[in-house]
Formats: sequence, structure tokens, C-alpha cells
Amino acid sequence: MADLRSSLQVYASAGVCYACYMAQQLPSDKKPHDAGGLQPHSSGARSSGSVGPVPGDSITSRDNKWLKKFRAALRGSGPEQGEPIAAEGPKLVEEGVRAGLETEAFLVSETGERQLERILRAASDSESGIPRSRIFKTTDKLFESIAGTEAPQGVAALFRAREWNFDDVLRGRADGGGAYRSDAPLVMVMTAVQDPGNVGTIVRSAEAFGASGVIATRGTADPWSPKALRASAGSALRLPLLRGIAAPVLLAQLRMAGVRILAAGTKRIDGSAGKRANADASMTDMGGACAIFIGNEGRGLLSEVEHAADDWISIAMNEDVESLNAGVAASVILFEAARQRRGV
Amino acid sequence: MADLRSSLQVYASAGVCYACYMAQQLPSDKKPHDAGGLQPHSSGARSSGSVGPVPGDSITSRDNKWLKKFRAALRGSGPEQGEPIAAEGPKLVEEGVRAGLETEAFLVSETGERQLERILRAASDSESGIPRSRIFKTTDKLFESIAGTEAPQGVAALFRAREWNFDDVLRGRADGGGAYRSDAPLVMVMTAVQDPGNVGTIVRSAEAFGASGVIATRGTADPWSPKALRASAGSALRLPLLRGIAAPVLLAQLRMAGVRILAAGTKRIDGSAGKRANADASMTDMGGACAIFIGNEGRGLLSEVEHAADDWISIAMNEDVESLNAGVAASVILFEAARQRRGV
Repeated sequence: MADLRSSLQVYASAGVCYACYMAQQLPSDKKPHDAGGLQPHSSGARSSGSVGPVPGDSITSRDNKWLKKFRAALRGSGPEQGEPIAAEGPKLVEEGVRAGLETEAFLVSETGERQLERILRAASDSESGIPRSRIFKTTDKLFESIAGTEAPQGVAALFRAREWNFDDVLRGRADGGGAYRSDAPLVMVMTAVQDPGNVGTIVRSAEAFGASGVIATRGTADPWSPKALRASAGSALRLPLLRGIAAPVLLAQLRMAGVRILAAGTKRIDGSAGKRANADASMTDMGGACAIFIGNEGRGLLSEVEHAADDWISIAMNEDVESLNAGVAASVILFEAARQRRGV
Repeated sequence: MADLRSSLQVYASAGVCYACYMAQQLPSDKKPHDAGGLQPHSSGARSSGSVGPVPGDSITSRDNKWLKKFRAALRGSGPEQGEPIAAEGPKLVEEGVRAGLETEAFLVSETGERQLERILRAASDSESGIPRSRIFKTTDKLFESIAGTEAPQGVAALFRAREWNFDDVLRGRADGGGAYRSDAPLVMVMTAVQDPGNVGTIVRSAEAFGASGVIATRGTADPWSPKALRASAGSALRLPLLRGIAAPVLLAQLRMAGVRILAAGTKRIDGSAGKRANADASMTDMGGACAIFIGNEGRGLLSEVEHAADDWISIAMNEDVESLNAGVAASVILFEAARQRRGV
């Protein structure tokens, strides 16, 4: 019983009553009230009442409201303002829960159910909870019909998106378990980066190399789209992040905040206009408050960014190679910025 | 006429007679022999005779041998020994032609035809040619039925694969237009890297940062598979490259050749066995002859590599982030190796 009781405490603090949950899982001779007097308490107390089936129950119809919501989100190109972020797969869902995001809905298939315990435990360790009324079960077949991946693992969640502002992106994430606060802002700005995989990779590297935040200007693939989120390995759920801002507005805001604008690219500006030629990443000072702009995979940076740039960063390479992958280019520059900032 | 004559020379040197080719393209009143006495010479001289339609003719049947060959190659996971490398898209095909690869077959759809001139011109600039007998035309619809991409651009080629050996990989590509020769071998070794996109990205970065060659050990996605080739942006068609070698054999060969074995990873080997702890990439000496091993996206390096390693390379990063994308990790290390080798 000791184990069961301590587990009970864990799940209860996560907003899920272990007894309620297990009562549905165990064969009747092992239900909690047969094994020490634990009674599943009245269900429905946390139920939303308005949508979906009875809390914790199975979804068996393709027309279920929640299934439709999951399908749209998991196969979409990113949430509109106010819509939830959709995460698929046990690893990514666990990252969201650990990051303290509020779970709007949590869906497991028969196959995914063995992941449930670990995820609920993660929820209990974080400030977030998963309300029992928002845990849905479904069949593997129905899960497949809503999944956005080819080999779905039977776990998905809709998370309420955090609302970050410009200051958050400059300051870095507020302190908390394992979080960091950057001394000087280091902002990664993506302008018209098309491939969600590249966008996700850049967000992942930005967090890894201590960026205070990332910004995806209008026309960039959404970092909260399912593909980008997967490529970010969860970083997009933690790092302060702005989406859909217009480049000229952003440039003005950065200027006002005293943040240097660094353009990553191979374009060399010649002539007598006093513009600097390309400097290799190792040569460009990235120690102070700065925002690094990376452009479209094919076309590079927008001309307004090129004109506003205080400095250029290029990456020295073999002349046979036209360019690097955009995710790699951004990551290499971030690595170099981190190296400079650590004083190595 | 001056333009036509100079073009003629260009195409003829590429193994394609411009007059022959254009005679099929132009309305009859503009055919070369009506416009200055240029007669298309007898076709079939370079025809293989054994396969496919009349040289230069259109393929209109789904059952055509060449179409089937293209389909299998463009949708496969990489060529077997002796099979051709399949490239799709005007950019990639041009890279192959420029790299001097021999074209076994070249396929254009109606849409792709406007790319033909540029590619044939590239062929004429390189040592390779595209025999007229191996240029096939087909419909957009049939092209779509063999393409490996979602939005096919109507150009594909089968290239004869170069046969590189271990020495090539250590020495770097032989000199030639824009090629380089590395002073000390810098070899990128991929062991069990699963994602073809990562493999291609690593090959691209390896060429960019002056690696002498790349090796994909057995169990790694094929760098010559269509997806990896695309992600390599053509680097896999230029850089000396070995595939399918067993890791223990490779480790022995590297030892014999006096090449240091560097393991990229975050695994720390503790204890009294005299093994080194992780050193940050900036700290590890990558100046001499060395081979950098990168492992599987989830499981990391094989234990035989871990045990054989002369040194470890890790990348310092934020503790909230478990790992970097494999393509990014390899690229950052290669960037650092290049920086050290340039003495910056």
C-alpha cells in the first residue's frame, strides 16, 4: 500500500486523482476500494460539461469535437492567436508538461496508454496540472486518423500558448528550475525562413546556446506548427518567442531598445556608403545586446534588414559550397556567440 | 545566326548536337536547315540501341524501361553498388553535371524543358557530357508518376557513381576547378545516423568546412539516397565518400593510417580507467589528422567507437536542452575544426 499511497499523492497534486484513474484501469478485484479503503471520489467535479464525452471516458466517434480539434491542430501550420499548441508524441508532450504549460486536452490511444503514468508524473512535478476532465482515451485507429506523423505513438496534447512580449524575448525566461537569465539580450530573428524543420532546429539551437529569445517575423514558418515544434525538441515550448511581427516594426523596436542588428549572410555590400564588408563569425563582436537576423533559404535577407544592419556575419567556407543549411548557419553563429560570451 | 552558331559549338562539345536537338523543338519553318544550311546530322550514332525509345524521343508509356529505372531510383533509399545515383530538380542535376559525373540518363518533362539549355551548357563547361541518346523527354503527368518530390520540377538524371577509396577520403578531392586538398585529413564519420536529412546536412557542412571526406558506416542512411542528396545540396556528388563500411573495420583502418579518433557526444566516461572526460569543442585539438565520429540521433555512438576514441568532443550548452540536432552538432564541430585549422 505504501507505493499506492505515495503515488496517490503524486497524481492528486497533478490534478488527477490516482484512485479515479486507476479504478478504470484495474480489474475489479484490484480496484482501490478493495485494496485499502481508497474510494474513487465523485467524478465530474472538474468536468467542463459542455464538450466531449464523460471525463476520462473513451472517444469512439470520428465526429467527436475534441478529435476534430486535435486533427485540425496536429495537421495545421500553427495556431492562430488564442488557439492551443498541439504536441504529438510522448517526449514532446512530456516537455510541454514539464515546461509548466496548461493542458487543454490530453489524448491517449490504446498503444499510448503505457506512457500515461510517466507524463502524469511529470505533470505533478511541474506547476501545471492535467485536469482529469480533459484526459481522453481513444482507439489506435481513431488516433491515427487525427495524428500528424506517419508512425503515431498514441499520445497528444493541446497546450495553452504562453503569451510572451518583446521584453520577455530580450530578458530571457524568468528564473525557475533550470532556467537561465541572459546578461545581455541575444535574440535570434528568423525572417521568411520557409522550412518548419529549419525553424524548429534554430529554436532548439537558440535555447542550447543561451539566446534570450527568438522572433519569427511575418512570413516565417510558425515555430509552434507541429513540424517546427518537433524539430525544436520542445525548446519552442520553453524559450520566449514572438511570432508574426512585421520586420520594419521589429527593427524599430530593437533600435529603441539599443540592441545591435546583425545580419547573417554572404552578401557583401561594396561601395563608398561606409557599409562594412562581411566579417567572419569569429571576428564579429557578438558580446553585447544583439539580434541576429537569418533569412530565407534561397533568397536570403529582406532588403530592409540588409539596410538596417549594424554589422554582417558570414561563415568562412569552401568556395565550392554555395551556402549552408539555414538551420546550420544560424546554429554555427549562435555557437560562436556563446563561445564569445563565455570568454573562451 | 552568330548566336545559333556559338550555341551549336557549346552543345556539340557537351556531346549533344544543338542542331539535332533544336530541330525537334522548332516549328518546321525555323528548323536549322531552313535557317542557314545547318543540317541535323544522322541521329542514332550515339544511341545505345538496346534500351528505350529512339534517342531524344519522348517517353509516352508508363511501362518504359527508363521511366521504371528513374522511379525506382528516385523513390529508393540509395543505390546499390554499381547502380546510378538519382538526382531530381534542375539545381541538383546541374550540380552533378558540373561535378563532372557521367550521365547515364537525363529526363525532362514539358515543364522542365526550359531548364534544359542551362544544364546542357553546364555539361559543356565540365569534363562530362550528356550523350544525346540518353536524353529523354516525357509528359508532366508521367514525370510526376516517377518523381520523389511533392512538387516535381520536371528534371532528373541518373549519374554514374564515383568509386572513392579510403585514401581519397583522407586526401580530399584531387585538384581541379575549385577543388581543394586538405593538408591533414579531416574525416567526418557518421555511425547509425538515421535521418537522411541529417546525413545530407552533415555532408554539406563537411564540404563547406573543408573536410577531406565523409564516411557513412553500415546502418547509416545512404548519403546518395534522394533525400540525403537533396539535403547535401550537391556536396554528396563532389566530396570523397565511403558508404556501408563496418565500424570496427574503419576504426582499424584509421588507426593504421595514424588518424586520431574523436568521438562527438555528451557521454562522460568517469572512473580510473584513464579515459578523458568531455572537453568542449573549443578545447579539443582538431588540428592534426583526425576523424570525427557522430552517432545516432537518439542512442548516440556505438560502444566500439566510444572505447576506441582518443578524445571526446562535446558542445557546451544550456542544461535545459538535452541535445542538439545531429546535423547541427556535426556542423558546429566541423566549424570549430575549420576555425582551428585556419588559425583564427
